[in-house]
Amino acid sequence: MTSSYEKMLALWGEISDVEGATAVLSWDQETYMPPKGAPARGKILSTLAGVRHAKLNAAELRAAIDAAYDEVDEDSTEYAQVARADYEVKQASCIPADLATAIAEAESNGLVAWQNARKESDFSLFESQLSELVKLNREKAAALNPDMPAYDVMLNLYEEGVTEKQLVPIFDELGGELAPLIKAAADAGPVDESCAMGNFAADAQRDFAMLIASKMGYDSEAGRLDKTTHPFCTTFGVDDVRITWRWLDNDFRSGLSGVMHEAGHGLYEQGRPADWARTPLFHATGLGMHESQSRMWENMVGRSEGFWQWAMPHFRAAFPEHAHCSVEQMVKAQNTSRPSLIRVEADEATYNLHVAVRFEIERKLFANQVEVSDLPELWDNTYQDLLGIKADNVAEGVLQDIHWAMGAFGYFPTYSLGNIICAQLYKAAEAELGDLQASFAKGEFAPLLGWLRENIHQHGRRFSTFELLKRATGEELCADPLLSHLKERVSAAYGL
Amino acid sequence: MTSSYEKMLALWGEISDVEGATAVLSWDQETYMPPKGAPARGKILSTLAGVRHAKLNAAELRAAIDAAYDEVDEDSTEYAQVARADYEVKQASCIPADLATAIAEAESNGLVAWQNARKESDFSLFESQLSELVKLNREKAAALNPDMPAYDVMLNLYEEGVTEKQLVPIFDELGGELAPLIKAAADAGPVDESCAMGNFAADAQRDFAMLIASKMGYDSEAGRLDKTTHPFCTTFGVDDVRITWRWLDNDFRSGLSGVMHEAGHGLYEQGRPADWARTPLFHATGLGMHESQSRMWENMVGRSEGFWQWAMPHFRAAFPEHAHCSVEQMVKAQNTSRPSLIRVEADEATYNLHVAVRFEIERKLFANQVEVSDLPELWDNTYQDLLGIKADNVAEGVLQDIHWAMGAFGYFPTYSLGNIICAQLYKAAEAELGDLQASFAKGEFAPLLGWLRENIHQHGRRFSTFELLKRATGEELCADPLLSHLKERVSAAYGL
Repeated sequence: MTSSYEKMLALWGEISDVEGATAVLSWDQETYMPPKGAPARGKILSTLAGVRHAKLNAAELRAAIDAAYDEVDEDSTEYAQVARADYEVKQASCIPADLATAIAEAESNGLVAWQNARKESDFSLFESQLSELVKLNREKAAALNPDMPAYDVMLNLYEEGVTEKQLVPIFDELGGELAPLIKAAADAGPVDESCAMGNFAADAQRDFAMLIASKMGYDSEAGRLDKTTHPFCTTFGVDDVRITWRWLDNDFRSGLSGVMHEAGHGLYEQGRPADWARTPLFHATGLGMHESQSRMWENMVGRSEGFWQWAMPHFRAAFPEHAHCSVEQMVKAQNTSRPSLIRVEADEATYNLHVAVRFEIERKLFANQVEVSDLPELWDNTYQDLLGIKADNVAEGVLQDIHWAMGAFGYFPTYSLGNIICAQLYKAAEAELGDLQASFAKGEFAPLLGWLRENIHQHGRRFSTFELLKRATGEELCADPLLSHLKERVSAAYGL
Repeated sequence: MTSSYEKMLALWGEISDVEGATAVLSWDQETYMPPKGAPARGKILSTLAGVRHAKLNAAELRAAIDAAYDEVDEDSTEYAQVARADYEVKQASCIPADLATAIAEAESNGLVAWQNARKESDFSLFESQLSELVKLNREKAAALNPDMPAYDVMLNLYEEGVTEKQLVPIFDELGGELAPLIKAAADAGPVDESCAMGNFAADAQRDFAMLIASKMGYDSEAGRLDKTTHPFCTTFGVDDVRITWRWLDNDFRSGLSGVMHEAGHGLYEQGRPADWARTPLFHATGLGMHESQSRMWENMVGRSEGFWQWAMPHFRAAFPEHAHCSVEQMVKAQNTSRPSLIRVEADEATYNLHVAVRFEIERKLFANQVEVSDLPELWDNTYQDLLGIKADNVAEGVLQDIHWAMGAFGYFPTYSLGNIICAQLYKAAEAELGDLQASFAKGEFAPLLGWLRENIHQHGRRFSTFELLKRATGEELCADPLLSHLKERVSAAYGL
């Protein structure tokens, strides 16, 4: 006889498969789909979204979950599976169908309007669509949890358990400490970046980056690298985890750090327990934890002196015109810092200030303290306050990011959560494993990966980001390790 | 108020989307999926098959179809839409669920056993799995239509309206006329094929083939070419029709004829009426008609003298080492003929004898005149009878094709139907348009494509293959134009 628990897992497997199919279609859309394929693809994705929604809301799944609670012991993994399924189903059933439809439509309109507004650098072309998105997402927050502040509900869509109250002092601390650091670097004058500039053939960049990814532990037999416009990592089960990249011909740092970043995400996905495939817990936990894994390899490893001691001969072999570059030059060129207008091009330190700007604006929006019409001015003023610079136009200002046009409010803070958690994890790993830089210098990355597998990857979605962080480090969320790390890096590069 | 007809179309659109998703996943599986991705992909595809089956068998679709009949005029396109949906739904509902499951399992087992048996060249490793597949497909035939001979039911899965009785005299005629022709070519001694042999860089082959495909009218903005093991054409709506290829480094004919073949399929798919997207009629008609379109471009165009008069300068530019080759040499090298053991490597004339062998065996199997254990000997004897040669081992004999291992019985004859129909259509097009070779020689392929668009492509699945053939040519199925064409080609190449 099949238990209700088994029934629940069988039904969940189908939901997971529909999500996998959706992910393949989205990957194809961003990599190989011919230009005219877009309209049909939109319809297919919409139908699959409907199939997923129907399966999540099916009466037989609801019944299987309810009955399964009686079959499993509390504190067991099975219980965690049931509870996770229960949570997901309840979330899916909270949103009234007409609100879900209105949001999907507003997102679709929002994207089109945003693209146009950015092209024309004219906020008025996007203002009404963005107002609609904010209004509908305020409604969505109320539908999901009327007892929680709206912005906290939004934040919890991407990182469960995080609150605005928790983040305010952290972003205050980041802003307070990083702004003077970045200014000091600017005052110290430019670093010699010539070892990272020049002509870098795409194939050579690709081969070099994949050599690094493979050395990190990314399994190309269970993944692949393809070209795209906005790089991402996507997964169709533990054994098919793909990464994408773009590159600059005249600066190899962009391509390499992008691949190390996405391969870091990929290692998390490839490291989840295969036994849990197609179950509710077979999923990474929050986006902050996910970002911590990408930042670990991009920043803590890829911009470190130990790493370049090992990697430099490979770099010289890949790019013979740069054979004269020293490890010291390269490490400095990897750790430049300067105030900048565009988030996605920002350095490791400045990045967090870009996030702080967006956090500041989002929380005011969802507290009804400002309206959409206030955003261009608020954006510029907040950049002036935090980074001391101001965009010449809205395309490089309030219109630079796609997130709000997609209805993603509360997403940005997970980028800084990732940086903060990454530094905490690195510190804990080093306390346990000893000098990591010494092992990187020998080309040994397995100790770090093993520690991440053990402490993070193998747990799937069994624990929240903050629970995992506590288990792995003994600590609550804390920005100090990140700040120490950034000060050390930037000071070394600029001789502060 | 939404009519039942509109309701039916909306539900059909979702079925069509699920089929599109399945096609993307299958395309990815054959092109870019990393090796370890296969198990998870199998599960996703199986779940999508279940979703499609559930949507086809949904009570609301059945009700919408029944009610829609009363809303549309007979002889209207709308009526044809309803009737087509009705037919598909009835087909899907005929197969009992346990039989469908048993067949899916037998196909999965069959593929694994076949691959192994072919590798070991040992029929006994596949015999029991093939017996099971034959047994289950006999049951399937009885379930689909107990009043029709089993093999006719199988044939109708791929080409509606075709019967064994209709095909027997046709394959007799092909065998009787082609065997002596092929023998005469062999006796006349080899043709000089040096202009097609040598070293052909993959990129140059690709560029040359795509120049031809584009000249044919294949729209790369609504499609793309990728590498695969077993080339195919696949479609996710009229505006995303992809082709795949493989090539030989030492003989450019394989890659080029493969691309022209698949692009021929692609032109059919791209030529369907966009207004019918996601409706029951938005589909090519039977496989024989589809194959006629691929063969049209691969053979009637791609191996013709007129084509090479235009193409030769492009060939010489693409492959400078072959700049000395003449049009006459090339046309001969494109029309060689010799008895061969492997169907997929066979020339235009011999190909039909390979099909005749399989037709002969399949019809005996489904008339219960032979059993699976008889197949290796029957295979060899039939090859000896029809082609005068015999394989040294079962890997090159009865185990060479994947079709039976996939449970596809009755599929092979559509290959020869395609060749026959192609020659009939070409004759009719030329009667209407005048000397096609003269237009090919000027690089003008639009007249032929226009004629195919008008007479075939624009009709989607509104008419059966044989209805379309009759409308376009005024004729029933007839092998004479194909035989005349082949005799002319082979005679010219060998100076018979």
